[in-house]
Amino acid sequence: MGDDYSQWYNELVKKADLAENSPVRGCMIIKPYGFSIWEKMQSVIDKMFKETGHTNAYFPLFIPKSYLSQEADHVEGFAKECAVVTHYRLKNDEGGLGLIVDPEAKLEEELIVRPTSETVIWSTYKNWIQSYRDLPLLINQWANVVRWEMRTRLFLRTTEFLWQEGHTAHATEQEAVEEATRMLDVYTDFVENYMAVPVIKGVKTESEKFAGAVDTYCIEALMQDGKALQAGTSHFLGQNFARAFDVKFSNQAGKLDFVWGTSWGVTTRLMGALIMVHSDDNGLVLPPKLAPDQVIIVPIFKNDDQLNALREKANQIITKLRGKGITVRLDDRTTHKPGWKFAAYELKGVPVRVAIGPRDLENNTVEIARRDNLSKEVVSMDALEEYIEKLLIDIQKSLFEKARLFRDEHITKVDTYEDFKEVLEQKGGFIYAHWDGNAMTEQKIKEETKATIRCIPLDGELEEGKCVYSGNASKQRVYFAREY
Amino acid sequence: MGDDYSQWYNELVKKADLAENSPVRGCMIIKPYGFSIWEKMQSVIDKMFKETGHTNAYFPLFIPKSYLSQEADHVEGFAKECAVVTHYRLKNDEGGLGLIVDPEAKLEEELIVRPTSETVIWSTYKNWIQSYRDLPLLINQWANVVRWEMRTRLFLRTTEFLWQEGHTAHATEQEAVEEATRMLDVYTDFVENYMAVPVIKGVKTESEKFAGAVDTYCIEALMQDGKALQAGTSHFLGQNFARAFDVKFSNQAGKLDFVWGTSWGVTTRLMGALIMVHSDDNGLVLPPKLAPDQVIIVPIFKNDDQLNALREKANQIITKLRGKGITVRLDDRTTHKPGWKFAAYELKGVPVRVAIGPRDLENNTVEIARRDNLSKEVVSMDALEEYIEKLLIDIQKSLFEKARLFRDEHITKVDTYEDFKEVLEQKGGFIYAHWDGNAMTEQKIKEETKATIRCIPLDGELEEGKCVYSGNASKQRVYFAREY
Repeated sequence: MGDDYSQWYNELVKKADLAENSPVRGCMIIKPYGFSIWEKMQSVIDKMFKETGHTNAYFPLFIPKSYLSQEADHVEGFAKECAVVTHYRLKNDEGGLGLIVDPEAKLEEELIVRPTSETVIWSTYKNWIQSYRDLPLLINQWANVVRWEMRTRLFLRTTEFLWQEGHTAHATEQEAVEEATRMLDVYTDFVENYMAVPVIKGVKTESEKFAGAVDTYCIEALMQDGKALQAGTSHFLGQNFARAFDVKFSNQAGKLDFVWGTSWGVTTRLMGALIMVHSDDNGLVLPPKLAPDQVIIVPIFKNDDQLNALREKANQIITKLRGKGITVRLDDRTTHKPGWKFAAYELKGVPVRVAIGPRDLENNTVEIARRDNLSKEVVSMDALEEYIEKLLIDIQKSLFEKARLFRDEHITKVDTYEDFKEVLEQKGGFIYAHWDGNAMTEQKIKEETKATIRCIPLDGELEEGKCVYSGNASKQRVYFAREY
Repeated sequence: MGDDYSQWYNELVKKADLAENSPVRGCMIIKPYGFSIWEKMQSVIDKMFKETGHTNAYFPLFIPKSYLSQEADHVEGFAKECAVVTHYRLKNDEGGLGLIVDPEAKLEEELIVRPTSETVIWSTYKNWIQSYRDLPLLINQWANVVRWEMRTRLFLRTTEFLWQEGHTAHATEQEAVEEATRMLDVYTDFVENYMAVPVIKGVKTESEKFAGAVDTYCIEALMQDGKALQAGTSHFLGQNFARAFDVKFSNQAGKLDFVWGTSWGVTTRLMGALIMVHSDDNGLVLPPKLAPDQVIIVPIFKNDDQLNALREKANQIITKLRGKGITVRLDDRTTHKPGWKFAAYELKGVPVRVAIGPRDLENNTVEIARRDNLSKEVVSMDALEEYIEKLLIDIQKSLFEKARLFRDEHITKVDTYEDFKEVLEQKGGFIYAHWDGNAMTEQKIKEETKATIRCIPLDGELEEGKCVYSGNASKQRVYFAREY
């Protein structure tokens, strides 16, 4: 990856055909290969949502300006940098200036392209919820959202991005808190067991939480350059949006009360995490569970007769692998040499490469290369499908273990501000340190070191200590890091 | 449906929990039940695209204003009624007016919320295509688009709608034409065999074709009120967008040439067609292949013991049906009476209802009700899963046949303008008449009767005749209708 991790990342995203910048500033184009990975992610996550009782729906792209102002904290967080639709028509300029905005087609009230949909959804929930029988309401939507970012980077921070946003309504505080933590668990399950990315579960500080939430739960991952990345958030909204949009229900005792809410989301930024956690200088490394092609077969041949014989054998292998639910392709193009193909599939992160030549046919063998550790092995063709099935499981597991080891090695307990700064500069990663719970302290540390509190861990043990910055009393360590 | 078909439609869409109007003028909210049908449609269509070699990608929501002007016809068609983003920030007004658009955050070039994506996609294809080896490029995207409609109706015509848009690039004219017609066939397959809606395949006249296309192929369906609905379009773009965005490739002879293009799309308006073609006064009627629940089981009981016994039996049935890949649910709520449930599932269009009571347990029977023709039958529980499996196929087929019969009865061959007008007023449907190929004639007929040429049929036989309006020579009949 060399010295410039950021450049390495940008180049990899482009070279591996994942995404590229669009002519619209800050918006990306997700290329077919990148999108096929995102589709796999979506399909797993969507299934998890449905298994936990959620259904999908679709709410409008536009939000009336006045809606954003309804929840006081929310407007502060989201009304600032956003795309504003002010007109609904263009026309040809009579003075020859070409296509201009028709001044007569000005909207009475401006529309905001949704930066998130709490406001428009809670204004709808008001009509959908009357009684406790209408609760819980468990809805998700897959959508595009827009936040006008000044400094963007492919997948990690773009003006338009794709995401899912869950919005739920409950009869009691307890149920809503349970929902918020349940969805954090769903995200953890997905990120750890499919993306093979270990995470720390925690809760955000007041200054880092979602604008309009009571509590923001999050999962935090560590990238190979030692910076943290927030991989998903789940918000307990209390009754904030119910109050803002007057969403009341009659409970079992017939008494009116405000509804309790949650919202939660993951975005195409997960693609950024996936790329940054596993990839190497040869290119992308994909965990088998999310790889569009899990296995690629490359024939090595000198003439058509050889190719035909290899094709026949390859098709037998393909049939067996597909029978095991493994996605596999044969690249029998004659326009590219095997070496070129090897490099290309390494760049694309295909987990397993099967090379097969005339001598393999004689010996009843194939050569198998693992993308994760680049090791090669000559293997018998007998029971090859069981071998590869096991190998894919092994690669999935070992990617996670490698990332977990790296992450654990980059969690440093620190008790002085000097050490804090030195570890941050020299080693990076998470710094596990005491904090006095004061927002001013948090702010000072951020200003002085660019490190923020990533989260207060959910499973962190209580421990009396002194704030690494102020020396004031603290009861629990928190995770600091520089972040994406 | 009574006299007011339009009111019947609007009420059905709302009562069956399919969609509702949103606080943003012209934009709809697709409710969970409606969205679950759309998801089924998407998943079938997406699979068909992949089986024909297409991959998904994602392009930006915003299009720079200048891009729209690049293709001369395209700008005329799409630059008119659209959502224009002019600013990227809101701020709190110092004079106390609340949240206002920050005048300092004006975009140098306005952005248009995509009404369709040819321009931004072809500007990208310029970078992706150099040689014939890069072709064909077969890409689709699922996206939301915005066209500022003055008169909107749920699903049929909304300011924001969901759709897929395929955009392909080819080395030869023939390949591009083949692609455009292949995708028309894919749409026909989906609409006829999944939606159970018969269509007429044809090509649009010059005045009805897509702005920027050489030819627009379409499928046209007939609604129960005798009006036509365009269910899908596929455009052969010629080299128009390649010229506009300078997309050239070197062919096998090493010569530079412009690329040939197609684009094709279907939208959430298909939901409108699905609703209008099959539904009746009891509510929605869904073809089994697109029904989120294909079978609903309603127990009829007087006490808990009965309910428990029925539950046990129902769960046995469910296991067997699911084994056949049939989606089925038991509604064992004690808060609602069976009669209420019967009406509710009729409203939602569930194809098959299984009612089961204590006497059925004794007799080893169930009562089966078909949603499509409202018939009921008492059936033995033995081999029930085979019975229901066959029934679902039968319902799917008979919905299509019923719609085809209605459609065929509403195609009227007409040879005089008097008959034309009378049939249109009295009977509606498609009028199959001679037209002289002149756009002025088409325009006059539209002004005088509100009927447009829906298409020139692809399989229409050549026949010498005289234009129903002008009396001039014509070689082929075309389909006229009033349309949605």
